[in-house]
Amino acid sequence: MRKSIATVSLSGSLAEKLAAAAAAGFDGVEIFENDLLASPMSPEEVRLRAADLGLAMEIYQPFRDFEAVPADVLARNLRRAEHKFRVMERLGANQLLVCSSVSEDTVSDDALAAEQLHQLADRASAYGIRVAYEALAWGRHVNTYDHSWRIVEQADHPALGVCLDSFHILSRGSDPSGIQEIPGEKIFFLQLADAPLMAMDVLQWSRHYRCFPGQGGLDVAGLARRAVGAGYDGPLSLEIFNDVFRQSDAHRTAVDAMRSLITLEEAVGLARPPAPVVPAGFAFAELATPETDRLSGLLGSLGFARTGRHTGKPVELWEQGHARILLNTGGRTRREGPALAAVGLETPAPADSVKRAESLLAPVLPRRRADNDAPLDAVAAPDGTELFFCRTGHPDHPSWTADFAPAAAPPEPAASAGITRIDHLALTQPWHHFDEASLFYRSVLGLQPDESLELADPYGLIRSRAVTAPDGAVRIALNVAPGPGEHDLPWQHVTLATGDIVATARRLRDLGAPLLPIPGNYYDDLEARYDLGPQTHRTLRSLGILYDRDEHGEFFHLYTVTVGRVFFEIVQRTGGYRGYGAQNAFIRMAAQHAHR
Amino acid sequence: MRKSIATVSLSGSLAEKLAAAAAAGFDGVEIFENDLLASPMSPEEVRLRAADLGLAMEIYQPFRDFEAVPADVLARNLRRAEHKFRVMERLGANQLLVCSSVSEDTVSDDALAAEQLHQLADRASAYGIRVAYEALAWGRHVNTYDHSWRIVEQADHPALGVCLDSFHILSRGSDPSGIQEIPGEKIFFLQLADAPLMAMDVLQWSRHYRCFPGQGGLDVAGLARRAVGAGYDGPLSLEIFNDVFRQSDAHRTAVDAMRSLITLEEAVGLARPPAPVVPAGFAFAELATPETDRLSGLLGSLGFARTGRHTGKPVELWEQGHARILLNTGGRTRREGPALAAVGLETPAPADSVKRAESLLAPVLPRRRADNDAPLDAVAAPDGTELFFCRTGHPDHPSWTADFAPAAAPPEPAASAGITRIDHLALTQPWHHFDEASLFYRSVLGLQPDESLELADPYGLIRSRAVTAPDGAVRIALNVAPGPGEHDLPWQHVTLATGDIVATARRLRDLGAPLLPIPGNYYDDLEARYDLGPQTHRTLRSLGILYDRDEHGEFFHLYTVTVGRVFFEIVQRTGGYRGYGAQNAFIRMAAQHAHR
Repeated sequence: MRKSIATVSLSGSLAEKLAAAAAAGFDGVEIFENDLLASPMSPEEVRLRAADLGLAMEIYQPFRDFEAVPADVLARNLRRAEHKFRVMERLGANQLLVCSSVSEDTVSDDALAAEQLHQLADRASAYGIRVAYEALAWGRHVNTYDHSWRIVEQADHPALGVCLDSFHILSRGSDPSGIQEIPGEKIFFLQLADAPLMAMDVLQWSRHYRCFPGQGGLDVAGLARRAVGAGYDGPLSLEIFNDVFRQSDAHRTAVDAMRSLITLEEAVGLARPPAPVVPAGFAFAELATPETDRLSGLLGSLGFARTGRHTGKPVELWEQGHARILLNTGGRTRREGPALAAVGLETPAPADSVKRAESLLAPVLPRRRADNDAPLDAVAAPDGTELFFCRTGHPDHPSWTADFAPAAAPPEPAASAGITRIDHLALTQPWHHFDEASLFYRSVLGLQPDESLELADPYGLIRSRAVTAPDGAVRIALNVAPGPGEHDLPWQHVTLATGDIVATARRLRDLGAPLLPIPGNYYDDLEARYDLGPQTHRTLRSLGILYDRDEHGEFFHLYTVTVGRVFFEIVQRTGGYRGYGAQNAFIRMAAQHAHR
Repeated sequence: MRKSIATVSLSGSLAEKLAAAAAAGFDGVEIFENDLLASPMSPEEVRLRAADLGLAMEIYQPFRDFEAVPADVLARNLRRAEHKFRVMERLGANQLLVCSSVSEDTVSDDALAAEQLHQLADRASAYGIRVAYEALAWGRHVNTYDHSWRIVEQADHPALGVCLDSFHILSRGSDPSGIQEIPGEKIFFLQLADAPLMAMDVLQWSRHYRCFPGQGGLDVAGLARRAVGAGYDGPLSLEIFNDVFRQSDAHRTAVDAMRSLITLEEAVGLARPPAPVVPAGFAFAELATPETDRLSGLLGSLGFARTGRHTGKPVELWEQGHARILLNTGGRTRREGPALAAVGLETPAPADSVKRAESLLAPVLPRRRADNDAPLDAVAAPDGTELFFCRTGHPDHPSWTADFAPAAAPPEPAASAGITRIDHLALTQPWHHFDEASLFYRSVLGLQPDESLELADPYGLIRSRAVTAPDGAVRIALNVAPGPGEHDLPWQHVTLATGDIVATARRLRDLGAPLLPIPGNYYDDLEARYDLGPQTHRTLRSLGILYDRDEHGEFFHLYTVTVGRVFFEIVQRTGGYRGYGAQNAFIRMAAQHAHR
């Protein structure tokens, strides 16, 4: 189906919005009236610009407070409409969105509303224009889609139909199944918007918090399926009022929007992009660093051994158990020092992983970095992290490890600290792009987003959301700072798993690992909250291990100090614990600030 | 009364919070448990630090999910409480805040709740500790203050009383008049928090949007009056959960908090700071500029004449009618170029204005900048704007104009563009400090805040709120950008009044004033919205004049282009129009971006 976006969903001037929509592959746009009014381009110039960009003018919107009014107001409203029809003629738009009235002038009289909308449609059709009538969730008398349809049915004019908006329908908890009873040709337009589930005034919710389908909690795909089932064949159009999108780069937002629509089409069964290939584990975590001294020391003190050197690039491989860390001194590095720059993901079919990502507009990275390198399938995540799709050590596929010449044997069990693998990675997302990131990991990699959490850093609330493979083999925590200010989120981390946190912690002490000091007050409180027995409490306190539990099991964790932007966490999960120790995050963050 | 603040209201480490509270003049603090847990200071060290700073430990909080539970849970909860009593003993805190349970363990049984709270109070009193029981607005069974009081009354223990929190009471719409029926000595603690009126889930509202009394829409002073009337004599304590305060400088937030409490004390009749002196008009607007060429040209083209030069500083005076603009090339200037740096306010008693401001913690500026200067009374507003209190041309007071040597006569009526005075000024507020600013102008100058508006800039929503003298002689619009990012709000403006916008606009054309081009689409829409007659529509369009109306009258306005951070607006108000043309702001902002 055609894909469209309302200009209000994107930032910038009307010209910038059109360019961004076209670049992301949209077929058409809804022209939001204020975007036209504020533009120095005349309607004719906008028409030409859109045509040049291959964008259809799907609808002009909104026309407000029209129906079910006294005769004198009707006369004014029709005069207003005639002005708009003339603008639309110049613009080349042949549908007008009319939203149900919120005015004090309107009365509760369906017959009057129908009769006046009939008049409006009659005048519109003289211009070749159709009228799509939409029930606003906060309309004064008409605020449900079935009510708007009853009025349209009663008005019975070929140039009058309904506009369905998923937000207005689902935010009120209306049952969308009645959509199937509307003849498809009378559904003139379909607007799709999601929103996080929030208990708040619906007008404020709509104006500030809408998001792209798949980024919130509404069943937008289910609603779209019913409209398509009813025979709707117009565009799928996104109309998103969102404070963050208003501030974000329009091109980036448009790509995010298109990714959302492709994912929705797949869910509805309208399109079949290449299937997602869920990653089966972490192949490696790659740290970009200006020099390796500090990280070498840190990794050594965690029981890692340098096992390889890349044959063509300044990259070292460090291993312990199945945990692999790459230190890359050749790439771009940041002022702050070492940072998590790339993630290797184990997948049964790297090429298929890339096809999936490409179909969802992820930038595909060059397969070979140098002539002698083994080919690598990789894409860029929205935050710039490079995702490599790997099949490590399988005879049927070239392995990235072949590019590394052995530097030393992996540590003997006696030298190791008992670390077995990477448990999860935590990536810092740019301030504006949290929902974009979770949709990306869900749609591209087939990971499931958990609940969004708020973590109290001493200098602001941090939002955190993990995306997880169904079997838990890949977990990525996405963290976003409260704002782009001076306290921008400094930290990413690599979390390593151990089967015995106490033995590992003791070994790390022996190895001189620089661990984050945890305040004694935390342990006093832990004793108040849990009775784990005096011995366990003493052990946790003396080794700086934090503790959490959920209904499935227990979680023990400790941290290193931060090097550059990166620190390491070491965890033991028992009995199927699913979380990340979020309730201890404020302790860790305060300790990190104190330690800096 | 003693003044206190909960540590959760301020950003940073516990040590930073204590320092900020003490520096702002607080007498005591509520220790928020997580702040202690995350601190590397032991309870004993915190006790000493607070004592050094002269801060009392007013209460330790919160203790959750205690009452009306089965016997086994009670045993665990009492064990947990004993741990807390020991921590409080080390800390030197002798009151514990217990909030009503939200746990699934609690049952609806007032007698059981009373009996168990009696037990808790009994154990607490062995440590010399009192228990203040607070009804959370979202408590499972106990969520109103009168309910919490019935339970406390029934428990009948000298170490058990209630804690009243204005947010929990007023957010639910409870009638606070029942507070007077609680014996004052049984009100153990009074927490004060305001919040903007929002229709949303009360828990989310409380956790993210609380603000200092006078910054929101709740009658916090009325509630405090009733508690004091009942005989409460503990501290007035602020407990504010606010996403912005979490990110802001703690010292600045603490000053804002103290200003709020002083204003509340005045409203309640507990304190009598020097009375506010409402300014009677604008004496001048001062622009700091690295050079005067561009602004001289602009002012000349607006019909201003340079009428004076400061005798000791590089400052020029420009006049037209009663509008006076100072150009100062001597002060600090910004990278962006000219900016509005100071405002002269006419007041009947400059020294009294300063006394008022000083009592509300506004920094007082030196009275003489140079030996020969006339003394000037001035303070700094939160955004750094200098506010000068002036008595221009009155024989009973030195006039700032005496420091200026005449440079030319004011323009003859023939040379003038008909500008009569400054209508209003628009100041850009730092991202985090919008509520602080409106409280400052209300409490220090006695200006009344209008509604807060949202203006759609192409790159984000801008919040705007005007503060106005009752007679409209002083109006200041406070604008704040959506975030501190790359699209930080660039613009301040000086709005000048004319009695005849059309004549002024024609004169400005003749003078070659650089006016902001307004899109033709705006005028097409204006014709659709209002039938002002073809002649008026033609005139507005040809002269680039925007139009608005309210129930009181009409508003005509036009803009110059921006020089540095500053532009000028010229307005005509008719028939008592009260607004600022907010509905046209999106047109202006888009035109400004297009023009840059």
